[in-house]
Amino acid sequence: MRLSRYFLPILRDTPKEAEIVSHRLMLRAGMIRQESAGIYAWLPLGLRVLDKICKVVREEQNRSGAVEILMPTIQSADLWRESGRYDAYGKEMLRIKDRHDRDMLYGPTNEEMVTEIVRAYVKSYKDLPLNLYHIQWKFRDEVRPRFGVMRGREFLMKDAYSFDLDKDTARHAYNRMFTAYLRTFARLGLKAIPMRADTGPIGGDLSHEFIVLASTGESEVFCHSDYMNFQTPAADTDFDSVPGLQGVVDKWTSLYAATEEMHDKAAFEAIPEEKRVSARGIEVGHIFYFGTKYSEPMGASVAGPDGQPVLLHGGSYGIGPSRLVAALIEAGHDDAGIVWPEEIAPFDIAVINLKAGDAATDGAAERLYKDLLAKGYDALLDDTDDRPGAKFATADLIGVPWQIIVGPKGLAEGKVEIKRRAGGERELVSLEAALDRFKGKAA
Amino acid sequence: MRLSRYFLPILRDTPKEAEIVSHRLMLRAGMIRQESAGIYAWLPLGLRVLDKICKVVREEQNRSGAVEILMPTIQSADLWRESGRYDAYGKEMLRIKDRHDRDMLYGPTNEEMVTEIVRAYVKSYKDLPLNLYHIQWKFRDEVRPRFGVMRGREFLMKDAYSFDLDKDTARHAYNRMFTAYLRTFARLGLKAIPMRADTGPIGGDLSHEFIVLASTGESEVFCHSDYMNFQTPAADTDFDSVPGLQGVVDKWTSLYAATEEMHDKAAFEAIPEEKRVSARGIEVGHIFYFGTKYSEPMGASVAGPDGQPVLLHGGSYGIGPSRLVAALIEAGHDDAGIVWPEEIAPFDIAVINLKAGDAATDGAAERLYKDLLAKGYDALLDDTDDRPGAKFATADLIGVPWQIIVGPKGLAEGKVEIKRRAGGERELVSLEAALDRFKGKAA
Repeated sequence: MRLSRYFLPILRDTPKEAEIVSHRLMLRAGMIRQESAGIYAWLPLGLRVLDKICKVVREEQNRSGAVEILMPTIQSADLWRESGRYDAYGKEMLRIKDRHDRDMLYGPTNEEMVTEIVRAYVKSYKDLPLNLYHIQWKFRDEVRPRFGVMRGREFLMKDAYSFDLDKDTARHAYNRMFTAYLRTFARLGLKAIPMRADTGPIGGDLSHEFIVLASTGESEVFCHSDYMNFQTPAADTDFDSVPGLQGVVDKWTSLYAATEEMHDKAAFEAIPEEKRVSARGIEVGHIFYFGTKYSEPMGASVAGPDGQPVLLHGGSYGIGPSRLVAALIEAGHDDAGIVWPEEIAPFDIAVINLKAGDAATDGAAERLYKDLLAKGYDALLDDTDDRPGAKFATADLIGVPWQIIVGPKGLAEGKVEIKRRAGGERELVSLEAALDRFKGKAA
Repeated sequence: MRLSRYFLPILRDTPKEAEIVSHRLMLRAGMIRQESAGIYAWLPLGLRVLDKICKVVREEQNRSGAVEILMPTIQSADLWRESGRYDAYGKEMLRIKDRHDRDMLYGPTNEEMVTEIVRAYVKSYKDLPLNLYHIQWKFRDEVRPRFGVMRGREFLMKDAYSFDLDKDTARHAYNRMFTAYLRTFARLGLKAIPMRADTGPIGGDLSHEFIVLASTGESEVFCHSDYMNFQTPAADTDFDSVPGLQGVVDKWTSLYAATEEMHDKAAFEAIPEEKRVSARGIEVGHIFYFGTKYSEPMGASVAGPDGQPVLLHGGSYGIGPSRLVAALIEAGHDDAGIVWPEEIAPFDIAVINLKAGDAATDGAAERLYKDLLAKGYDALLDDTDDRPGAKFATADLIGVPWQIIVGPKGLAEGKVEIKRRAGGERELVSLEAALDRFKGKAA
């Protein structure tokens, strides 16, 4: 992408309304614009990051065996009356009347609708297990939306719903998602620790929140420090292996980890003092087994092996990609701006032409830019006539992992500079060496 | 994808509520499920097609120089009060009150919001031209939604908005979209003819509808038959060339073509009789130049070359991907089901194992399936224990372009059958020849 033809509205001043660093940096880097309280437009740079997060989420959902669908945003109130949640849900539900005065709503979640779909088509235990997910906009009418996309009203959510014949097979479905989530967050460059969550009236031990440690986190969390060094399940994990996945879950739940609500002070203090981590955390995922909570009132059953109807056992599994954009920035930034992990960065490499219009720098910058594109990189060419200082500030602010700086002085000696955003290391190399350094992007 | 692990709820019976063939086939092929009147969930097969259409649309928008953003679905009524459209828009607008009793709405289109974004950031003529597009769900509360996703209430729309300094440069922006649309529809396997459309109170000649001829089309259209043989602009079209794109537009508007509302009987009858086409058509795109219609009431101006403020000249450009799924089926089906164009098909090739559980057919089918996946194809393996007749019917119904049929009899002689869905041609070849036939999918 040529910056001269892009839409990257950088703000040089820090917006006053932003209370947390991710919100400030997303506004300054031209990633989002607020359209109403808690409702944001995603500008080109922000959308690139959001799309890359969704790609990783989708790949890991698919790997685990979940199947993608796409449910609509507007739902009928009647569906929610079937489950009994229409009246129970408070003012966070955006209620709507259509032109025929029918009660509708903007979906805050989709348990009812997906249960309706499964009820309509799935008739036999042979069609199980089934896990359907979608990535769709949701609306929750928060009384006080804040922190930018961290707690917005219209937000993007990946929500998956599993359907199984009994609690044992449902547990395996749960373990699949647990494992997929570990892989997803690791690929996003996040250390996310599963913490036991409150299961409410249903009880049981099958609910976990995935928490990223960040000094600006919304809540206090407590865990054993060994979690920091646990291995992420490998890409070739066999998601059909019941003992294999149970082993993953057992390992990742073997040590103490709890949010404030579930905190057990005595258990925490049983951990050797040097292994106790008490920190702030951001919730980035939540998984939940709820048994027959929806299948029972909604009559979602299948014929079991003996021909008798069996109510489906369900679970739901959420990740918020729009919130993750902010969480990634909370976990990765410095004074100069955002520091993206490589897989999620909006661009892989920025080629910075310090003197646009100069034949030599234009030629070298173009050559680098086209070479990188041909090798499959998402490259950004700063071909604007901004001053060098502004160009450096922009590249640092938007957090592109690698910068190749092409200036007239260096180029007179055949050299360009390569800078790594994360550590700040700089290296002066020949143009040929720079071309050779970036070999091609792994698919 | 292994069919045994997929969610493909085929209906053997024709649904009574569906009036047109695309609606019937989408329901029968398990592509969509109606959740409320005019509101559909996209099941896995339908979502695959929708995503592939969006990919083509996106690639051609990007090629033309448009930049992708993503605006929210829920908008503030105040924005629409600025343009004067809040009161003017009728009951098709879904009006909402949030918990603080603020007037909101579900966006039926985004002229106001994108103008607000541009007004906020674009200050100089040097930042032009600019074309921002997004692919987002819209809602229009049709009084009588029908024909499935052809005329739904919640529908997916790609809408682009161009901003230019004057009418001449705005015309080039218009020509870019005109050319991008020709390429988009051609890649989707559709013959779409641009027809002059009513420009309403603004006047001028800068509005075209793109119409696909289909016997089940919603309206009558009239055109010169030579349009059928016009060349689509090439992939390396220079979108910066003003005369080049004007040449494309001049050529594609040189002959008579009009919808019923704009029909000029005398002009049509001036065409030699054998060249007159009078047919049914489906609108698949609409482009429109509207000058300062929104920039004036909303105060969207930039500093011109002389430093004086200049109101922006705008245009908007829409394609409905969800409607296109239906249009593609209207244009491509036979008695057995859907016949997808290759670029849009949900799967490229179906490997049909006629005797799942048989070691020989399982081995051959698995080998074919894995080989095709490794070569980059979207392959579907029918590994279910359905009877052969049901498997053939399913493969034909869902319209996968190529089928490789692996049965015990053929395999005893080392043979499998390759069937092309579009023409029905069948060929008995060795397993090795089948492996060799599909060389790899071009990216």
